[in-house]
Amino acid sequence: MSIITLTTDFGYKDHSVAAVKAALFSELKNLNIVDISHEVSPFHITEAAYIIKNAYHNFPKGSIHLVGVDAELSPENKHVAILLDGHYFICANNGILSLIASEIKPSKIVEINIHNSIETNFPVLDVFVKVAAHICRGGTLEVIGKSISEIQQIKNLEPIVNDKQNQIIGHIIYIDNYGNVVTNITKKKFTEIAKGRKFVISARNIQMSKVYETYSEAINFKLPKEKREEEGKKLALFNTARYLELAVYKSNPHTVGSAASLFGLKLSDSVSINFENETNYVG
Amino acid sequence: MSIITLTTDFGYKDHSVAAVKAALFSELKNLNIVDISHEVSPFHITEAAYIIKNAYHNFPKGSIHLVGVDAELSPENKHVAILLDGHYFICANNGILSLIASEIKPSKIVEINIHNSIETNFPVLDVFVKVAAHICRGGTLEVIGKSISEIQQIKNLEPIVNDKQNQIIGHIIYIDNYGNVVTNITKKKFTEIAKGRKFVISARNIQMSKVYETYSEAINFKLPKEKREEEGKKLALFNTARYLELAVYKSNPHTVGSAASLFGLKLSDSVSINFENETNYVG
Amino acid sequence: MSIITLTTDFGYKDHSVAAVKAALFSELKNLNIVDISHEVSPFHITEAAYIIKNAYHNFPKGSIHLVGVDAELSPENKHVAILLDGHYFICANNGILSLIASEIKPSKIVEINIHNSIETNFPVLDVFVKVAAHICRGGTLEVIGKSISEIQQIKNLEPIVNDKQNQIIGHIIYIDNYGNVVTNITKKKFTEIAKGRKFVISARNIQMSKVYETYSEAINFKLPKEKREEEGKKLALFNTARYLELAVYKSNPHTVGSAASLFGLKLSDSVSINFENETNYVG
Repeated sequence: MSIITLTTDFGYKDHSVAAVKAALFSELKNLNIVDISHEVSPFHITEAAYIIKNAYHNFPKGSIHLVGVDAELSPENKHVAILLDGHYFICANNGILSLIASEIKPSKIVEINIHNSIETNFPVLDVFVKVAAHICRGGTLEVIGKSISEIQQIKNLEPIVNDKQNQIIGHIIYIDNYGNVVTNITKKKFTEIAKGRKFVISARNIQMSKVYETYSEAINFKLPKEKREEEGKKLALFNTARYLELAVYKSNPHTVGSAASLFGLKLSDSVSINFENETNYVG
Repeated sequence: MSIITLTTDFGYKDHSVAAVKAALFSELKNLNIVDISHEVSPFHITEAAYIIKNAYHNFPKGSIHLVGVDAELSPENKHVAILLDGHYFICANNGILSLIASEIKPSKIVEINIHNSIETNFPVLDVFVKVAAHICRGGTLEVIGKSISEIQQIKNLEPIVNDKQNQIIGHIIYIDNYGNVVTNITKKKFTEIAKGRKFVISARNIQMSKVYETYSEAINFKLPKEKREEEGKKLALFNTARYLELAVYKSNPHTVGSAASLFGLKLSDSVSINFENETNYVG
Repeated sequence: MSIITLTTDFGYKDHSVAAVKAALFSELKNLNIVDISHEVSPFHITEAAYIIKNAYHNFPKGSIHLVGVDAELSPENKHVAILLDGHYFICANNGILSLIASEIKPSKIVEINIHNSIETNFPVLDVFVKVAAHICRGGTLEVIGKSISEIQQIKNLEPIVNDKQNQIIGHIIYIDNYGNVVTNITKKKFTEIAKGRKFVISARNIQMSKVYETYSEAINFKLPKEKREEEGKKLALFNTARYLELAVYKSNPHTVGSAASLFGLKLSDSVSINFENETNYVG
């Protein structure tokens, strides 16, 4: 049974998501449609990329991922279908794929050219669904588009490491359901630069000198419950997607507050890590 | 595999939607359940009708649509199952079907009468699911209800065209996920009255004299990006459902604002279109 | 086809829910995944328990229910799989099961011990999915855990009945999508104590002396519509889950207000029922 996923900024109230699913079920019989997210902030392709990047690789190879974020056809926004990491993506060539595939080279890219026969102002419904159905039926990408060699690149602000290799400056790329703030500093990058040195993470007026692997690791369960200082405890950890995250233990953005609200942090704010010089460290 | 869709005002948090799906899976084995929307404003049947009308026809013929909005049985709110445009609808006879089917005549209508054997305060779960299962198994409508000739009509405020045929007054029937405002003026009605004449669309203190087919059409891509005035650009277009919509290019209701917030428009507000007199136009 | 349900506090925007579904589809071919809710308030296990309790029993026996609320492994938060009422539950042993199963004894409980071979900070994805797949394939619970005899109990505040049996004091355990407030007083408990006596329900400065079976029952449909006092009518009823609920007829929390907002009631607020003494009643 084929798997087709949907990631859009359509929201869950409007008819749009259901219309796309309906069109898929009209084209294909044996089908699992899985929502990745429909609450992407409108036109926010970096947010969409973060969500898709951390979800898609868990699906079986051969899955087809439709992305309906900023997908209207325009002279600067062509439609593409690509094969990447064994997965198909159908989306606008607006740079989103360069964010999802930052570390992997697509094995095939075509610019979709079936539009000539389709007049539409709803391309996810009228174009992407047709392309997905074509792939599901075993069709090749070349039939629905012409091969191109490069996808549109957009500058994804990578964390900056200074020349002395004792500072990383990243920024906040996502705020999750718990109000925890996610930076663009990966565990891999952190480990590479840290080389076991001590460090201080700073964001606004918050400072932390430890990164945990899980939330619970920050709590000393040997102490009796009332002495543990669980409530409102601030911590840094590598989240499930392996990015550095600043969090509040068991936060609730709607009641007690969250890292975002309590630390006063928002999207794009910078987060820096300063590492102790090894000379100092040894000395 | 049968397709059953759900449209309710139950929301996504409560147990209600899952309970209905559970009951369907207990009755039927091979089944695709598709959510149309569960975020209909409570008891808002015109909103529900707009959403269903623009989603249902994309599903394969024979699909069964359950509508759980204002569905409690009462002396004035009987339950009906109808066959319309090749699709089955199971809902309360509260007028919603007259809005969905405004241009199509149902080919069969029955008033559901299996309630005698079912005591319930959750009819979508206890009655609609049973009716859906009956239809899925190939049962006829006559077995679960008695034929009636008319569905309940509710006055759907249609746009008003003046005697001189140079003005249409419509109103706002829906505000979408992007905060764009959708009027009840269809492209069909507009084209019929416009006859190619110039016009001015007015809503509060907003005026526009062009209607686009897509959002991007409003942008002049020949200009360099910084000169295009994309940001906050207001436009009128026929949306994917072919209704006249007032929009802000790439709006976000939660950050930069939207047509609804920036133009100060809300549900039921009037939108008028004044057409140039042909004599003026020629003269 | 196996049914696996998901109840989490992950929300619908983040990648987490899709990642879990993806992992399930990678393990299992024939599968229906049903969302119970992903909008549980963060870490709110009593809320999760209320939602699950009222949804699960509608699913076919043999269904598998994954609960991702407060599920991080810690010295005090072990993972369990249980068989209860013919349904499988996979969750943290944090007391949530004692709330779901308050009236039913689990027929089997194992503490999951496959963690040794799995290093993870996302146990719903890495552990619960594996356990679910094992059960789906017909595996026994003993293979993935060691039998234990008791699940973690948490004190679920039950309504208190006074010695004279003329008063029940309960509290509000849930606020639903319409803003109606749900108490922990069941119809069963009410009927048992009421013994047909007159009563007054009090919450803050609201008092009611009748409990309806449906919302519509509170409306006198024999009167012409304008005399019915439908709008804003306050009522008490036994909701679809058979708990005492205080409601406003056709409320909308986002516009006209709801029981919660209009009565000024919130989670944990107390609701009391005072029954007339039979001597008074007779005399």
